[in-house]
Amino acid sequence: MATSGSKCRACKAPAVIDLPRHNANFCADHFLQLCRRQVDKAIDDYDMFDRSDRLLVAVSGGKDSLAIWDLLVEAGYQADGFYVGLGIGDYSDESRAYVERFAASRSLHLVTVDLRDDYGYDVPTAARAAKRKPCSACGLSKRHLFDRAAREGGYDVVVTGHNLDDEAAVLLGNVLRWDIEYLARQLPVLPAANGFPKKAKPLVRLTERETAAWCLLRGIDYLVEECPMSSGNRHLHHKNTLNAIEQASPSSKSAFYLNFIDKMAPLLASQSAAASGDVHDCEQCGSPTTTELCAFCRLVDTASAHEPVPVELVLGRRGRR
Amino acid sequence: MATSGSKCRACKAPAVIDLPRHNANFCADHFLQLCRRQVDKAIDDYDMFDRSDRLLVAVSGGKDSLAIWDLLVEAGYQADGFYVGLGIGDYSDESRAYVERFAASRSLHLVTVDLRDDYGYDVPTAARAAKRKPCSACGLSKRHLFDRAAREGGYDVVVTGHNLDDEAAVLLGNVLRWDIEYLARQLPVLPAANGFPKKAKPLVRLTERETAAWCLLRGIDYLVEECPMSSGNRHLHHKNTLNAIEQASPSSKSAFYLNFIDKMAPLLASQSAAASGDVHDCEQCGSPTTTELCAFCRLVDTASAHEPVPVELVLGRRGRR
Repeated sequence: MATSGSKCRACKAPAVIDLPRHNANFCADHFLQLCRRQVDKAIDDYDMFDRSDRLLVAVSGGKDSLAIWDLLVEAGYQADGFYVGLGIGDYSDESRAYVERFAASRSLHLVTVDLRDDYGYDVPTAARAAKRKPCSACGLSKRHLFDRAAREGGYDVVVTGHNLDDEAAVLLGNVLRWDIEYLARQLPVLPAANGFPKKAKPLVRLTERETAAWCLLRGIDYLVEECPMSSGNRHLHHKNTLNAIEQASPSSKSAFYLNFIDKMAPLLASQSAAASGDVHDCEQCGSPTTTELCAFCRLVDTASAHEPVPVELVLGRRGRR
Repeated sequence: MATSGSKCRACKAPAVIDLPRHNANFCADHFLQLCRRQVDKAIDDYDMFDRSDRLLVAVSGGKDSLAIWDLLVEAGYQADGFYVGLGIGDYSDESRAYVERFAASRSLHLVTVDLRDDYGYDVPTAARAAKRKPCSACGLSKRHLFDRAAREGGYDVVVTGHNLDDEAAVLLGNVLRWDIEYLARQLPVLPAANGFPKKAKPLVRLTERETAAWCLLRGIDYLVEECPMSSGNRHLHHKNTLNAIEQASPSSKSAFYLNFIDKMAPLLASQSAAASGDVHDCEQCGSPTTTELCAFCRLVDTASAHEPVPVELVLGRRGRR
């Protein structure tokens, strides 16, 4: 990953990775140290949590979620894992196996839920039954289950593995539409409110190339394949757009995201609609909601009544490759 | 420009142009009508000027400035032209010829200034002498001369031909850095203030493809070549980025710019630093400034004392092609 002969900025040993946005190369040890420092800085700057908090880390088996679980455990945080089986064919079976192997190898506690076993549906079926995009049905399901698992397990914070590329791509999408309410809520940490737990994204200062390198250097085996249902979505287009900008002008991507958080988010703070409205308990599951049945229970009702839809049937032309 | 056999949305006659962002094709007459309406809408929505105002239109010989001059005169506005000879080799000689032919063919009044003849320097020399980028030396010179010409000629508004592509590209650059003060000032109209004239950009609702088509259909001969000194600059990269986004998702570009003006600019209005400071008259030229000598007079002093630099010497590798 580094050009041959390049040296670590910190110790002059042979470098294993070049980071154009830092205009430097690093050996394995100093690269890992850089990752730890970037995560520490995010946790501190945005007041995410401390070592007295019980953290629930949402893990998918991909590089980002395994990297942040590893980083938090290594740093002495109380971090359990939480895995949701989404029923996306082989992809879900494999992702579960990666998560379980990682947890077992380090004797970590893993909480699991399976949409099909526990709620009678899966993401392909939900997408078809509710006429939603798969990523929308999936996101709704995961957010609900993260919140519920944190509430039921007495966790203080839900941690997700969103990295700088993810957040910058979402920001670009929100900026292209100037969706003020979404922009106002796009923060690395959201406080607990209305019965929803606190949420934190400690990887926002690391790119996906960096989390992949973290896993490689730490010997973490992760699922490389992207979810087949996300192929061709707009989020990936925005990532490519930002990568092209970054290529022409290194560090543009982090400046775009971090300057937004520093300079723009405070100006937007008052614009986040106190969307709470009249929050009460969902009649079916008890989760906080502004409607009789929460959106998740409505999705469960619709999707679990539908005949199971195999993932192949829902994949668009682009998804099939 | 339209696919063969396509029909005008308004009259079903054979179309001459397709506009994916409007999801429609148009015949020549209805395309020209669309352009007029978009310009009328910009003038009205942003309260730019009316037919009692004397307008000074900054013209370069390119499609945008000749199109807006044509549109304004056709619509009955009092619009004179203003041309600045920048001394950028053959490019400037040609651009001047296009402007003069256009003005002469329609018996329009054209005010001209020449940097070399009137101020003893040109853009390539200024760039070298002041160690500025050529686009920076050029922009400073033009802004000053537009303002001064408006003041001395008793014009109410300076009109420039910035189109949707220009404004969206500048917006993208400002957003990538979250330069709040620049964002707050990026408006289609700036009121007169501190001795500076009102400024308006009536083409912000038309793309450069549309202004080119306007010229083509109206028989306006314009300089197609871009300024050789601008080649490879970041503004062009941002235009390409937005074109790729537009290609994947038509009307993204106009949504990006127009939603910014509608939804974001009002939130930023209070953020525009009252940069006025202590404004007084420049000791040398009498223009409003916060320093003893205004930035233009300082540039004139430096650049006019420097031996003339031929344009070829200042062109970067990318500029030479």
